[in-house]
Amino acid sequence: MTKVAVLGAGSWGTALAAVLASNGHDCTLWSRRTEQAEEIAEKHTNEQYLPGAVLPDTLKADHNLARAVSGASIIVMAVPTKGIRKVCRDLNSVLEGPVLFAHVSKGIEPDTHKRISEVMEEELDREICQGIVVLSGPSHAEEVIRNQPTTVTVAAKNTEHARRVQDLFMNQSFRVYTNDDVVGVEIGGALKNIIALAAGVTDGLGYGDNAKAALITRGLAEITRLGVAMGANPLTFSGLSGLGDLIVTCTSVHSRNWRAGNMLGKGKSLDEVLDSMGMVVEGVRTTKAAHQLSKECGVPMPITEALYAVLFEGQKPIDRVELLMGRMKKNETEDLAGWS
Amino acid sequence: MTKVAVLGAGSWGTALAAVLASNGHDCTLWSRRTEQAEEIAEKHTNEQYLPGAVLPDTLKADHNLARAVSGASIIVMAVPTKGIRKVCRDLNSVLEGPVLFAHVSKGIEPDTHKRISEVMEEELDREICQGIVVLSGPSHAEEVIRNQPTTVTVAAKNTEHARRVQDLFMNQSFRVYTNDDVVGVEIGGALKNIIALAAGVTDGLGYGDNAKAALITRGLAEITRLGVAMGANPLTFSGLSGLGDLIVTCTSVHSRNWRAGNMLGKGKSLDEVLDSMGMVVEGVRTTKAAHQLSKECGVPMPITEALYAVLFEGQKPIDRVELLMGRMKKNETEDLAGWS
Repeated sequence: MTKVAVLGAGSWGTALAAVLASNGHDCTLWSRRTEQAEEIAEKHTNEQYLPGAVLPDTLKADHNLARAVSGASIIVMAVPTKGIRKVCRDLNSVLEGPVLFAHVSKGIEPDTHKRISEVMEEELDREICQGIVVLSGPSHAEEVIRNQPTTVTVAAKNTEHARRVQDLFMNQSFRVYTNDDVVGVEIGGALKNIIALAAGVTDGLGYGDNAKAALITRGLAEITRLGVAMGANPLTFSGLSGLGDLIVTCTSVHSRNWRAGNMLGKGKSLDEVLDSMGMVVEGVRTTKAAHQLSKECGVPMPITEALYAVLFEGQKPIDRVELLMGRMKKNETEDLAGWS
Repeated sequence: MTKVAVLGAGSWGTALAAVLASNGHDCTLWSRRTEQAEEIAEKHTNEQYLPGAVLPDTLKADHNLARAVSGASIIVMAVPTKGIRKVCRDLNSVLEGPVLFAHVSKGIEPDTHKRISEVMEEELDREICQGIVVLSGPSHAEEVIRNQPTTVTVAAKNTEHARRVQDLFMNQSFRVYTNDDVVGVEIGGALKNIIALAAGVTDGLGYGDNAKAALITRGLAEITRLGVAMGANPLTFSGLSGLGDLIVTCTSVHSRNWRAGNMLGKGKSLDEVLDSMGMVVEGVRTTKAAHQLSKECGVPMPITEALYAVLFEGQKPIDRVELLMGRMKKNETEDLAGWS
């Protein structure tokens, strides 16, 4: 049994905390909101983020960060990208000994374009951070909470750290595989939200499965190109945290990025979409960051560019999608070979 | 304008013939059944295979093979895998001059384990066969007939041949890309049906999107491993005819292989499934061929092996799926690197 704290009681943090409590670990879920922490601790539910789900009796919850992390040897960070720096700084003042961190957020920091593990490395005091592991893969929280079979990847520079997180989460229905490519796993997890938004747009426009399959295929190619330019192993993008996560996010009704794109495709404005979602849509901010990164790295990303024009330059989805279809290269392997 | 014959009036042959007629070509669709040829020529419908669709007025149809191919400079082969040899032999006795062939069948010959272009090369007389091009990609006929945006790959050893077929089919909504990897395009197109069957099984068992995404990811890895052992370029499997076609086949309700797998997952026997489909389910025969090929090439294909045990050895789907989940390797890149 390991003492673990999961920070962030959104759908993913809550589902992962439930896995850990079910695995017999002493797990506390931290929510910054008192009433949510009380609901989880007393009613064993989180109706806002996982409606209908019953959480393990043994799962604790606390709205006080110092109490939540007290004595933990592993901390799982499940807060939205924009909250990471603040939570890290708060941890510096409450943690006493060194802790292993696992983060499960999928995004890139908007202004700096840094990956989540880079942000955490910057903010966390050396004495309290043993290491940082990223956990990612095709894993809708709504299915994990119902024990439906799920596979994820954990990646760390230090293999021993990845194995510790693997052992913590692994059970019969939640399978965990290790990988040493932190950059590839983080970039794949963040950038798939762009393609999911775009897939939602084409579905919203009434395009069919043929077009969506082409979009996902070309989307993975452009994510891979950028990832390789940033130092990732191209093979990672063919794995669970690349292709696997991309498929689940683009084809599942659970995906909030897909749903946001779908509304855009049906003619809603970005503001209307964000208002009606009531949850973070990481893909919107990731599109901005990736659009900038593609220019910095000199990597062509036509789908990202098209989505950027729709989201931030007021262009019509239909115009950009038609432009995209017309501009794909005539020889397929020339284009794909760009990242090999 | 080119004179073209499309052989085989199933859903795919009919949809492609409609594209060619719409593109202004002089196109004749051959159906071996007189009443079907008459329905297509006179009513401009093919209710059995494309219910509700209206075919171009200019599309001709004939049940007589000699008349259908007379004067054609390109012949599109859209007959099921098991009919290819017979149709090629019949063509030898009716064709007069050399013709360029494009085939669009997705399968492997059951007993010989040969690819479709290999079968055609064996059967067609040298004097009448200028070359063979394969056309493949994420392309449900039901969407192509409604002009929904679709992208496919054409591959040939001779680039000029691929370009001729590209020019023939290309239009605003049907985009065609060239590739020189005939082996990769044929293997990807054939073997994706195995993974679609398996995805149908897991869906039929009530597993969720997380499990299906993992299955598709691992499925592409094992298809790629076999393809590379047979001489394909691994990059082809990341393209439209590999990943793209795999996604559309595993996630679309149009896919007959997925539907067959879904019935198997729900407890029906293979005989019951095949009886109720009323169409060819290429994936069943392809599973047998790939199972044998994986042994011949010494390439591990755990998903194919599990499906083979369900289809041909009477094993229960649930037992094999659980075995499959438990046996995946613990380090993801070790496994994926197998084909790099």
